[in-house]
Amino acid sequence: MELISIIPNFAPRSDPKLLAKAEALKPVLRYTDYPAPAACQVNGEAVKTESLSARPLRRGDQVLLDFGRHLVGRLTLNLSAAGSHQDAPAFIQLDFAELAGELTDNPEDYHGWLSRSWIQQEKLHLDRLPAEAALPRRYAFRYVRITVLDTSPKYQLVLKGARCRAESAADWANVPERRFPDSQLRQIYNASLRTLAECTQDVLEDGPKRDQRLWLGDLRLEALTSYVSFRSMDVIKRCLYLFAGTRFPDGRMSANVFTSPEPAADDTYLMDYALLYPVALEEYLAESGDAETLGDLLEPALEQADWVLGHWLNSGNTLEAEAGRTGFIDWSDTLDRTAALQGVLILSLEACAALCGRAKDEGRQALYQTQAERLREAALRHFWSEEEKCFLSGGQLSIHTQVWLTLSGVMPEGRAGAAFEKALELPGAPRMATPYMHHHYIMALLKAGLKEKAEAHLRAYWGAMLNAGADTFWECCDPDDLQASPYGGMVVNSFCHAWSCTPAYIIDRYLMKEESRP
Amino acid sequence: MELISIIPNFAPRSDPKLLAKAEALKPVLRYTDYPAPAACQVNGEAVKTESLSARPLRRGDQVLLDFGRHLVGRLTLNLSAAGSHQDAPAFIQLDFAELAGELTDNPEDYHGWLSRSWIQQEKLHLDRLPAEAALPRRYAFRYVRITVLDTSPKYQLVLKGARCRAESAADWANVPERRFPDSQLRQIYNASLRTLAECTQDVLEDGPKRDQRLWLGDLRLEALTSYVSFRSMDVIKRCLYLFAGTRFPDGRMSANVFTSPEPAADDTYLMDYALLYPVALEEYLAESGDAETLGDLLEPALEQADWVLGHWLNSGNTLEAEAGRTGFIDWSDTLDRTAALQGVLILSLEACAALCGRAKDEGRQALYQTQAERLREAALRHFWSEEEKCFLSGGQLSIHTQVWLTLSGVMPEGRAGAAFEKALELPGAPRMATPYMHHHYIMALLKAGLKEKAEAHLRAYWGAMLNAGADTFWECCDPDDLQASPYGGMVVNSFCHAWSCTPAYIIDRYLMKEESRP
Repeated sequence: MELISIIPNFAPRSDPKLLAKAEALKPVLRYTDYPAPAACQVNGEAVKTESLSARPLRRGDQVLLDFGRHLVGRLTLNLSAAGSHQDAPAFIQLDFAELAGELTDNPEDYHGWLSRSWIQQEKLHLDRLPAEAALPRRYAFRYVRITVLDTSPKYQLVLKGARCRAESAADWANVPERRFPDSQLRQIYNASLRTLAECTQDVLEDGPKRDQRLWLGDLRLEALTSYVSFRSMDVIKRCLYLFAGTRFPDGRMSANVFTSPEPAADDTYLMDYALLYPVALEEYLAESGDAETLGDLLEPALEQADWVLGHWLNSGNTLEAEAGRTGFIDWSDTLDRTAALQGVLILSLEACAALCGRAKDEGRQALYQTQAERLREAALRHFWSEEEKCFLSGGQLSIHTQVWLTLSGVMPEGRAGAAFEKALELPGAPRMATPYMHHHYIMALLKAGLKEKAEAHLRAYWGAMLNAGADTFWECCDPDDLQASPYGGMVVNSFCHAWSCTPAYIIDRYLMKEESRP
Repeated sequence: MELISIIPNFAPRSDPKLLAKAEALKPVLRYTDYPAPAACQVNGEAVKTESLSARPLRRGDQVLLDFGRHLVGRLTLNLSAAGSHQDAPAFIQLDFAELAGELTDNPEDYHGWLSRSWIQQEKLHLDRLPAEAALPRRYAFRYVRITVLDTSPKYQLVLKGARCRAESAADWANVPERRFPDSQLRQIYNASLRTLAECTQDVLEDGPKRDQRLWLGDLRLEALTSYVSFRSMDVIKRCLYLFAGTRFPDGRMSANVFTSPEPAADDTYLMDYALLYPVALEEYLAESGDAETLGDLLEPALEQADWVLGHWLNSGNTLEAEAGRTGFIDWSDTLDRTAALQGVLILSLEACAALCGRAKDEGRQALYQTQAERLREAALRHFWSEEEKCFLSGGQLSIHTQVWLTLSGVMPEGRAGAAFEKALELPGAPRMATPYMHHHYIMALLKAGLKEKAEAHLRAYWGAMLNAGADTFWECCDPDDLQASPYGGMVVNSFCHAWSCTPAYIIDRYLMKEESRP
């Protein structure tokens, strides 16, 4: 996710004690070496990779390596010269792609608003051959295309080998063995975990290609999926400490945190992300029972809900319409977010109550519970349209609103199914754009008892990415337009994106909880 | 110089003993740090460099640093970010230029036959700011243009500093102090020595931008100039051992030698270059009196002349016309080189005689002297046109032929001046293209006693480069067309080229030998 918020002279407030604990929790990365695939393409023609040693490459020649799976790591090329002695530098271009389709885009043609610096292309001079060219940067890729920009009339380049040293902090040994009823579910489950593993680095990144950074909304979904698989408890804990350890001057949590050169909150606030912090913390404690963390992070968590209550709640116990502008919910230019955010706030207050309960603070527990109940009643009163049999936000009918007011328990019994259908079918209504939203839609279906619909949607949506050749799940996917990019160019899209990793969680906890362990 | 010769499966013959001596003579490079200049340009506007710290740079911004002198070395940039936190890599382009004019060429438009890999342009991603970006490659430049290809909408790049660590094996402490009669001669002398210093590296390179390599014809001129200035005796000796230590299988010396990964002869033979090896060795011994070197290199030197005598000499004691194709003499597509090469061969035989004299081998000394005399007589008989009062080669009148048959003592007494003028003025006659040829022209003028003309030509030709803003002298210079390139693009021309460094030698030894020492 990338949103543009700029606060001049923003100086985040940091808590050295919390940041020191985050630092101590830095994971040790695991490295795995992947050799070049056995087969590759030279100028579009399939050849055995080992035959490249006898195939001199000239100006304009291209070698396409398909490593056969998504990798996050560093590439080393083993290069030498053929013909007469090397008498000029070799000049090569490397294009890294998560999906083969990215390689057809010319980076020069990208003029979108995201930085073109995310495009994974390098131009490299090799003054001396033979050379082992170890590229210093980390890339997220399955495909590497090597273009010979020039050698000289006297010599040619020879690609003797390539390998990738992949990096991840995820421990596959923790993943339970599992039987699946069919191959589609198995493939979806596996791609989910590959997605999460690729994002499990020094922090839980949103995407290893872009932004390579810790976002709060992504973190929560990654943590949920990690609990049922890698159980990267220290990394999750580290991320929770990072968000609490560096915040806006008024105590709000940033939507994302930088870790280099020092941990620092970004000057971007997203109300729903901040409100989900107590939820994520409660989920972490439920898994870990970690009392020290509760002590350290309870107050920062409660502050997130308190701040919203103190600033955006009107006397009728609903969020001010204006508050909708400060949330994310989903990529959309037209979505009215107020009612959905009210749902997030209710979930947040419930989590705050649970956290206070863990801390044996029954007084505040009861207050948060009461507040949640009040907001639920107000939401029903204010947003429900008896005429439409749906929730409306600012008069707008959207699936997003139905989903979050279902998840927060506001949806009247038995009404969810029809409300979802109506919102999904209404021409011109905001559409779900991201796997992040699709995840919450499925969770709402499950909450409404519509398990078959939930499973069908999971298979349809994430299955569409698999059908399109995905190894890992994407930042955004419109099954009706697989080339779509919110950034004006597929070449900057992230095709391994954390918020897309939850099918493994859903499959484990909701779809085949009992019978799947062997 | 760059010529394309390709011999399939060429395997040079190496002499480990000679190469070990060459290795032991590797110079220690001297490093000098140059900070960024006090003034620079941002998007064409002059600013103080120190003010850049307060000037955030955005997509498309350009900073032009003029270091005020030619440098051979490595650049380090000190970069940081301004605005919001860096949320994407910085992506910058660096263009290095010896002459400002190079920067107006777009490297993408270069389609000449030389490798585009020589173009000094890099594109660089900086994942983490602040950063001290130390570029690993060596560049030859005075100007560095930094273009911000992208930052992100959230942050800008700040150039806090730049410095170059320059490299050379030349020792300026050895250069004698000197008074000059006028500033033009002083400037020409100084630029000559800067040119030589920049080329004095691990070996005596032809040019630090391109080819960064040891060429025999260049070496001889660099050595002559070094004897009157830096006296880099070990480097010169090292180069002489390198040419003898790796050769064609039949004993001929290559026109140039590679030093990486191991010393290796190139598969390019240029008859005049090989024939000048005995000349260069004799000149080195005259300066050094180094008996060990004479012992090691005498036979390899003699072999160069012997091979030509054995392969290309006809019964009339002139070179076969075909032999002309194996020489260099000057850049020219039309030049008939046979007569000029005969001149080079005569000089080579005289040097062989002198070398034998040093070795007290009076028998061979006399044989080489006799042979030289025979070839001189034959040259006069065969190439002199009494009608034209000039030498003709294959019927062609050229300055090149006059020059080399003057240097080798074939030109009849008192005829040189008129012959030179006629050759220079004849429409359609091959023109002198390189400083290498202009050097030999001046030496021929001096040999013919035309010292005033020699000095005037030196001032006019090298002065023209200075007038065009040269800090160092160029690989090629046509005073009538300063943008000319033999390679189809100025962007690959070398503007600091060894064979252009001889004015300091000529000034020292011929123009102001006596009176100039203070």
